[in-house]
Amino acid sequence: MADDCLFCKIVTGEIPASIVYRDDRIVAFNDINPQAPLHALVVPTRHIATLNALSADDDALVGEVVRRAGIIAKDKGFEAHGYRTVFNTNAAAGQTVFHIHLHLLAGRKFTWPPG
Amino acid sequence: MADDCLFCKIVTGEIPASIVYRDDRIVAFNDINPQAPLHALVVPTRHIATLNALSADDDALVGEVVRRAGIIAKDKGFEAHGYRTVFNTNAAAGQTVFHIHLHLLAGRKFTWPPG
Repeated sequence: MADDCLFCKIVTGEIPASIVYRDDRIVAFNDINPQAPLHALVVPTRHIATLNALSADDDALVGEVVRRAGIIAKDKGFEAHGYRTVFNTNAAAGQTVFHIHLHLLAGRKFTWPPG
Repeated sequence: MADDCLFCKIVTGEIPASIVYRDDRIVAFNDINPQAPLHALVVPTRHIATLNALSADDDALVGEVVRRAGIIAKDKGFEAHGYRTVFNTNAAAGQTVFHIHLHLLAGRKFTWPPG
């Protein structure tokens, strides 16, 4: 856990969030500024600042984050219709919380390019 | 490999592409309709149709795809500026090739929402 990391504090429960999934490795919660009928953030419980900081030891965890997003989409009924998943890294992409989080968006049609 | 899968044919070299990275598990190539100065697709060499088809056995591979996107961004000089990475699943998200591929976009500012 990193001091002053908003998502670490959501993981521990120090800051409340609308939790949609939780286990010891991954927490998912609804985005406070949703951009689609389903807009959750799927995060590892362990603090990793950006994708730039990943090592091979993190591969299984990051893959599980992606797979978990798909399972949440399925649980919400969006498996067949589809969903978009997005990691933003650093300022050009709009990353504002430096704890990696996969945006899971579903429930509408998504345009191209992706922003 | 799946018959009639465009990305399987790019992996094997049967169909040419502008390859930016290749090893036995992952191939990355430039998108033919780029939406940013850098727009590559990072794919596992193994055929997986959508994120819906993932199992826990795939976690390390999918995590490596994400990490590899970050390494490519770094190699192209976009590590600090930032980059956006996107998996689209099924029609609502615009998935047109049913072999999972991570869009890596960099070199400009990205808006929100992501499409």
